[in-house]
Amino acid sequence: MKAALFYPTLALCSALLLSACTSTPQQSAVSADLARLSDSALKSELAYDVVKSLTVEVGPRIAGSEGDKRAVVWAEEKFKALGFDKVYKEPVRVRNWSRGIADAKVIAPYQQKLFITALGGSVATPEGGLITQVVMFDSLASLKKADAAQIHDKIVFINQRMQRDRAGKGYGPVVIGRSQGAIEAAKLGAKAVLIRSVGTDNSRFAHTGVMQYSDDVEKIPAGALSNADADNLQAMLDAGKDVTLAVEMRAKEHGWQTSYNVIGEFTGSESPEEIVLIGAHLDSWDEGTGALDDGAGVGIVTGAAKIIKNVMGQPKRTIRVVLYASEEFGLTGAQEYTRKHKAELSNIIVAAESDFGAGEIYQIDTLFAPAAVEQAKPLFEALANIGVTQGHNQAGGGPDVSMLPKYGVPVVSLLQDGTYYFDYHHTANDTLDKVDPKALAQNQAAYALLAYFMANSEIDTRPAPAKTTNSH
Amino acid sequence: MKAALFYPTLALCSALLLSACTSTPQQSAVSADLARLSDSALKSELAYDVVKSLTVEVGPRIAGSEGDKRAVVWAEEKFKALGFDKVYKEPVRVRNWSRGIADAKVIAPYQQKLFITALGGSVATPEGGLITQVVMFDSLASLKKADAAQIHDKIVFINQRMQRDRAGKGYGPVVIGRSQGAIEAAKLGAKAVLIRSVGTDNSRFAHTGVMQYSDDVEKIPAGALSNADADNLQAMLDAGKDVTLAVEMRAKEHGWQTSYNVIGEFTGSESPEEIVLIGAHLDSWDEGTGALDDGAGVGIVTGAAKIIKNVMGQPKRTIRVVLYASEEFGLTGAQEYTRKHKAELSNIIVAAESDFGAGEIYQIDTLFAPAAVEQAKPLFEALANIGVTQGHNQAGGGPDVSMLPKYGVPVVSLLQDGTYYFDYHHTANDTLDKVDPKALAQNQAAYALLAYFMANSEIDTRPAPAKTTNSH
Repeated sequence: MKAALFYPTLALCSALLLSACTSTPQQSAVSADLARLSDSALKSELAYDVVKSLTVEVGPRIAGSEGDKRAVVWAEEKFKALGFDKVYKEPVRVRNWSRGIADAKVIAPYQQKLFITALGGSVATPEGGLITQVVMFDSLASLKKADAAQIHDKIVFINQRMQRDRAGKGYGPVVIGRSQGAIEAAKLGAKAVLIRSVGTDNSRFAHTGVMQYSDDVEKIPAGALSNADADNLQAMLDAGKDVTLAVEMRAKEHGWQTSYNVIGEFTGSESPEEIVLIGAHLDSWDEGTGALDDGAGVGIVTGAAKIIKNVMGQPKRTIRVVLYASEEFGLTGAQEYTRKHKAELSNIIVAAESDFGAGEIYQIDTLFAPAAVEQAKPLFEALANIGVTQGHNQAGGGPDVSMLPKYGVPVVSLLQDGTYYFDYHHTANDTLDKVDPKALAQNQAAYALLAYFMANSEIDTRPAPAKTTNSH
Repeated sequence: MKAALFYPTLALCSALLLSACTSTPQQSAVSADLARLSDSALKSELAYDVVKSLTVEVGPRIAGSEGDKRAVVWAEEKFKALGFDKVYKEPVRVRNWSRGIADAKVIAPYQQKLFITALGGSVATPEGGLITQVVMFDSLASLKKADAAQIHDKIVFINQRMQRDRAGKGYGPVVIGRSQGAIEAAKLGAKAVLIRSVGTDNSRFAHTGVMQYSDDVEKIPAGALSNADADNLQAMLDAGKDVTLAVEMRAKEHGWQTSYNVIGEFTGSESPEEIVLIGAHLDSWDEGTGALDDGAGVGIVTGAAKIIKNVMGQPKRTIRVVLYASEEFGLTGAQEYTRKHKAELSNIIVAAESDFGAGEIYQIDTLFAPAAVEQAKPLFEALANIGVTQGHNQAGGGPDVSMLPKYGVPVVSLLQDGTYYFDYHHTANDTLDKVDPKALAQNQAAYALLAYFMANSEIDTRPAPAKTTNSH
């Protein structure tokens, strides 16, 4: 049985005239509830306490590692300590790779150490390392057009700088060099590939991130130079010098390990089978403490659910917080979740993942059945009060829920300000001091509003419409 | 013989009424010359090209190292290539220390790697490292008051945060913990000391810098934690946990080596024995490429001298550019310079060192015989046009010339904006990308104005008055 809720007449009022519309008592009550929840969430340090706890007590947690195992234990204990109704974990087989050392230096015409890191999944160099000349390209596209004779037995340097952008739009055009660089360089006979870090900073922290091989192309070592070191190497090459590098990387595969998606729920009091899913990923890269990626997300969604319970009581639909395993190595946990829960995907009212750091949210995009967008006006109004404007209805929902819309699952993207996210993303410098507690609380409030509104209404967002754009 | 120059009537005009004063033809000519020089220096990329050349072609150059030897060769070649009249080097015996690895991790109650670096001059840990509990103090002063029983056989953690300030005023109160921490901790029986980095950044780069031992106190290893790692350790300790660290450092002394002060001059056409000395230090720490500290200074003073020659021709007094050896390990090169040149110190009209990064200059302080301050008004006016205001007459002149005033040598401090200097100072992150070419050119212009004005006037700044404050 479902309670009659608050949206019936709202669609009749235009947004601009809303204050002039006659509100039903339910509408006023809902707006007041949302305002009360938002205020509490803005004031609460819970999200920050959660990410602090994760980064201080666990720290790095690359999939399948000892740190990952500790993170799973931590997550279960955290959900239990916060009083979630149901806490459980679901096994996921994850790839376990370790970075090992990654050293590089210029040995001619000058002598300089270069700060590099291995790309995630890279093979090691041969024992003793590689010593050979380097050849520079300004993009993957340029590399693909190159003559093999120019590249044979050399190290390819893909020197493409990522541009800063609030929405992170600089990432896509550059990250292709990270994912495909080793394949394209190997096709042309290269010994290794080094890319300029996919990051917007000026620093000596190199940015890792997963890369790919192709079964029919030789696997060559792949690393990233820090932006500062890429500048230095570029300066030598721009001056027309033949530059020789010595590179050694000791990355290693350790086979498949068992990790877990860890799940905490507040069970719906009226429609427990209907699920509002908010998620983040529990794994991180190994060099930082995974504060922005994705400790912040873990804090935000965990804090949001708990604050709803504290302030508003038991939700009517189930609020499910999913902390996914092994996002970084190809959304492994999310794929397993989707496979395992296929039969109940049609019960998901909305899914949303927080995985873009800790910057303030400035926009909500949806992927709802069109009528539901109109019905969700009170949510948009409450979000507008904390600086979040309504965007389009072509949302992607975040990496770990990105495969759900094709099963008709509605998703929401709460877009975060990512202006500085890629200064720290996938580096040793992804640590708690980069998390602004105030911005994090605003995120917590936005997720609380989303989850509460969707859990305590009868709005049916299903089925998600087909996506016609690639907007995330 | 000296030419009659431009200051005779200037002292009669107040600064405010200057434009109303009747200028002599010489005064107008001087102002026009200074403006022309300043414009050229602001537009010239020479200082930037010099620091780029040094950081790309040489890079790290800790005193006595192979990098330092390459830097000496580089400096001689650079002076010659730029057409300095006299290029020579003077040997300096320097301490040669190497950092080796510096690893630290928390092994209980959690398991986390900590990013540290050895302080300059530290001894190594015993083979295999140290494993022991850590005890935290908020300052050196608190450590000095502590009970030895609390510290015996432990690692002392001095957790004092440096405050950001344009003039770098946050440095002094905190750096005392870096220089004296090992002595005070050892007196109380500590096994090692780790300080929170003396830096204003939030990052995982730890800041090195020279530290001291006392002959009558045991020498214990001394390192610095990055600010991010100090935060992490502090969070564990603030939560009341007993925290155990494993620390290994392999720093080493290599005895004394020969390095050089490298000197380039444009010889005075009328009073070659009178010297305008502008300097910087050639050595750097070993982790960064020494761009801000002190490649920027090398670029600024070298560029300034060369641009004077290019734009204004041969100076009347000698302009001497001194690139000092081993500033970081205790001003070794500057002390040797002072000793060796003692007989001619009375010929130095003014000395100034650029050693505070690459931020814009906002103030000029002098230490001149009082009458000379008034006579230098055209210089102050020209500097005002590029944003530099006149300060006090109690200047220190910069580290490598700081010992000269006691011999009566007048000095000038051109104060740079150091707001961000201590984000990078003494870290691996001190690289060329931190140097803003536009700000660097403004520095070049200020040094060019100073050196040209002092070299082409008859103003006698000597003897420097006694200093009554500690202003630098």
